[in-house]
Amino acid sequence: MPKRILLIGAGRSATVLISYIIQEAEKFDWFITIGDLNPKLAATKIPPSNRARAVFFDVSDSDLRRKLISENDVVVSMLPAHMHVSVANDCVELGKNMATASYISDEMKQLHESAVAKGITIINELGLDPGIDHLSAMEILDNLRAEGARIDEFESYCGGLIAPESDNNPWGYKFSWAPRNVVLAGQGSAAKYLEKGNFKYLPYQRLFKNSKRIEISNIGNFDGYANRDSLKYQKAYGLENANTIFRGTLRKAGFCEAWNALVMLGMTDDSYKVEVNQNTSLRDFTNSFLPFDNQLSLEEKICRELQIKIDSEIYKKLEWLELFSEKTLIPIKSGSPAEILQAILEKKWLLMPDDKDMIVMWHRFVYELNGRKFEKHSWLRVIGKNSVETAMAQTVGLPLGIGVKLLAQGKIAQKGVLMPLTPEFYTPILDELKNFGIELHEETIELP
Amino acid sequence: MPKRILLIGAGRSATVLISYIIQEAEKFDWFITIGDLNPKLAATKIPPSNRARAVFFDVSDSDLRRKLISENDVVVSMLPAHMHVSVANDCVELGKNMATASYISDEMKQLHESAVAKGITIINELGLDPGIDHLSAMEILDNLRAEGARIDEFESYCGGLIAPESDNNPWGYKFSWAPRNVVLAGQGSAAKYLEKGNFKYLPYQRLFKNSKRIEISNIGNFDGYANRDSLKYQKAYGLENANTIFRGTLRKAGFCEAWNALVMLGMTDDSYKVEVNQNTSLRDFTNSFLPFDNQLSLEEKICRELQIKIDSEIYKKLEWLELFSEKTLIPIKSGSPAEILQAILEKKWLLMPDDKDMIVMWHRFVYELNGRKFEKHSWLRVIGKNSVETAMAQTVGLPLGIGVKLLAQGKIAQKGVLMPLTPEFYTPILDELKNFGIELHEETIELP
Repeated sequence: MPKRILLIGAGRSATVLISYIIQEAEKFDWFITIGDLNPKLAATKIPPSNRARAVFFDVSDSDLRRKLISENDVVVSMLPAHMHVSVANDCVELGKNMATASYISDEMKQLHESAVAKGITIINELGLDPGIDHLSAMEILDNLRAEGARIDEFESYCGGLIAPESDNNPWGYKFSWAPRNVVLAGQGSAAKYLEKGNFKYLPYQRLFKNSKRIEISNIGNFDGYANRDSLKYQKAYGLENANTIFRGTLRKAGFCEAWNALVMLGMTDDSYKVEVNQNTSLRDFTNSFLPFDNQLSLEEKICRELQIKIDSEIYKKLEWLELFSEKTLIPIKSGSPAEILQAILEKKWLLMPDDKDMIVMWHRFVYELNGRKFEKHSWLRVIGKNSVETAMAQTVGLPLGIGVKLLAQGKIAQKGVLMPLTPEFYTPILDELKNFGIELHEETIELP
Repeated sequence: MPKRILLIGAGRSATVLISYIIQEAEKFDWFITIGDLNPKLAATKIPPSNRARAVFFDVSDSDLRRKLISENDVVVSMLPAHMHVSVANDCVELGKNMATASYISDEMKQLHESAVAKGITIINELGLDPGIDHLSAMEILDNLRAEGARIDEFESYCGGLIAPESDNNPWGYKFSWAPRNVVLAGQGSAAKYLEKGNFKYLPYQRLFKNSKRIEISNIGNFDGYANRDSLKYQKAYGLENANTIFRGTLRKAGFCEAWNALVMLGMTDDSYKVEVNQNTSLRDFTNSFLPFDNQLSLEEKICRELQIKIDSEIYKKLEWLELFSEKTLIPIKSGSPAEILQAILEKKWLLMPDDKDMIVMWHRFVYELNGRKFEKHSWLRVIGKNSVETAMAQTVGLPLGIGVKLLAQGKIAQKGVLMPLTPEFYTPILDELKNFGIELHEETIELP
């Protein structure tokens, strides 16, 4: 019988996923329904095909939601993460498999037992990060352990960056993903990781200052700053005995020290509204974070407060954002410092139509095997085609699309609320990703 | 008819208040009831008197609460601030006047209209800060405006400090008030103030670094760091046209740069629990906030991270806290960084029985009068007697006690939920405080 697949939420980041699913539908005799609040717009994303249609979908309309889910065999949610659970509840009740690219929330986790009892699979964290990081790290860890290796150290980094050919600003960064998440990154609690057997805590005020320099041969030099909780997957990855576990985010080398300047100024704060008006310039905005001093210019105050020089790279990056400009007005007329900074950055870090983004992932393993010590590096680089078919959309959408295919084909035996940590996920998905030029490379050296 | 006064909450900070109220009870034929969860302990705080008794009181027992309130004429709440409202609700309903030393909460503010309708007074913020700051600033502001002055700048600072004769540690600080509030001071949102016509925002990560040096002649040199919202009282004080409004907290000169070191390390963070065990030394605890580096000692890492020298005052202060000690174990076995730091500080900053604390308050006014420009300073210094009869307990308890007397004597005409901003409060209270050696001094100079 032909499989029916329901894809919910046809936002910008779903483009590659939709193309992939429809292409596979032709091969495997599937029928695809794309549900969106705006079905007309969603329809424009469907390549010519009699195997797909767009329909109206509102996640808060439970009758409609249950009707559509009951008519399909597999459900893919590309909705914002907090909306997955109501869909997942229906999937458990109606016995339908489901897939998302989002982190498993606590509410989602609670559905595990009932999903197992119902015999369905709800696969999550199947995008880029989380997603390809799980697949690629687990394949290597399983192989090393099968050989008898003892894993001592694990580090993993990923970043959504700009390709060198489109890198024409001093920050080496443009937005290929939610700008708000970039501005608020690292806030809320200290970063926690394990280094040489010691728990380490890095507060927001030193997070970007203490980024690590990551040099990846043939790709480039990056800053890696620590993710919130590096120990989150320690048990799931079987790394209980490792003495170093670090997960981080990559930015182009030099980005983090300049971002730290914005953090220290207070421009990333989202907890209060600033007093601004129609005529507030970016210079006024910047000045509101600096003490009054009629002996010094704004530029001199910035250098004194941040202890930087006027010919430093940090200063140049701030200046390029027009933060010292009297002529440039703030782009929104009310908001928190973070909201105003985001609006400023959205103008300066806009991905232009022909710009190519770049995904870089890098794992580092240190292990002992037969009394010898080794260090293995594994890395991925993907360059986007343009500002629509981005490397970000490909690396998030394709693993999810392939996962959906595996579910439709009945190739996933595990039941419950899952992450893709086992060979039944990583072997076929990493294999098929190579067809799209998404392939990890590795090198191993013996340590003295 | 003799007045009956109910005092709720006989904690450590209520000692001076209780003594004052009972002394006045003898003069004015009052009867005092002290309600506390532990009436036996409360009874030990009552000087020999047939005008006072201690009774069991539980704020969550509404029948008991209403019975006790209905039997009295004036109610004083020394409970934790969030518990005042249930008492205030009963006072409004039963038509009883009430007094507290706490900030007016939003819930308390909402009782204003019904308190006015019922013809009762609920006076709040009648302690030290808030309290004596309101009384003393408003007296000066009212007098200046009556002369025809235009107020351009207003700054106000207050600090609970240690008297010079008991100042025997490098921080120049011991706890005379809630330690937790000291450790968490400044967290939550940026400090907001007005300086020379510009709104200024100072994030937590620069709050203590950007403290101002305050030199008060004959008293000493202090650091003043900005309070959360300096503009809170702009309207209430009638300072809508002032171009500078700054409210701050005083610490001994040199304290803030060293506190900033603890902030930057991440030791004041209350948002997560650290991994510690029985044998965790203060050195281990400190090391968990520093990156791994087997080339450097902990001491060298501290200096590098904080950009300080090993012979600096900041380093000496950290060392004196035993933060580099392998022998000193952390004093509590679980908690957030802030909770562990608090436990460390409670040992090191303990007020010894004979120690004397010190309250310093300092106001600065700049104004124009008859075409001439003046700067007026007003200051208060109070030295405590010992670790029980502290300057803090006196300056919090006495204004409240005198306010209660004014209420009992029917001398307060204003009704509703109030702060003490008018002459009917500040004239008699500031006057009587002089009898206890609590007196503001001032000097005025003409500006060029």
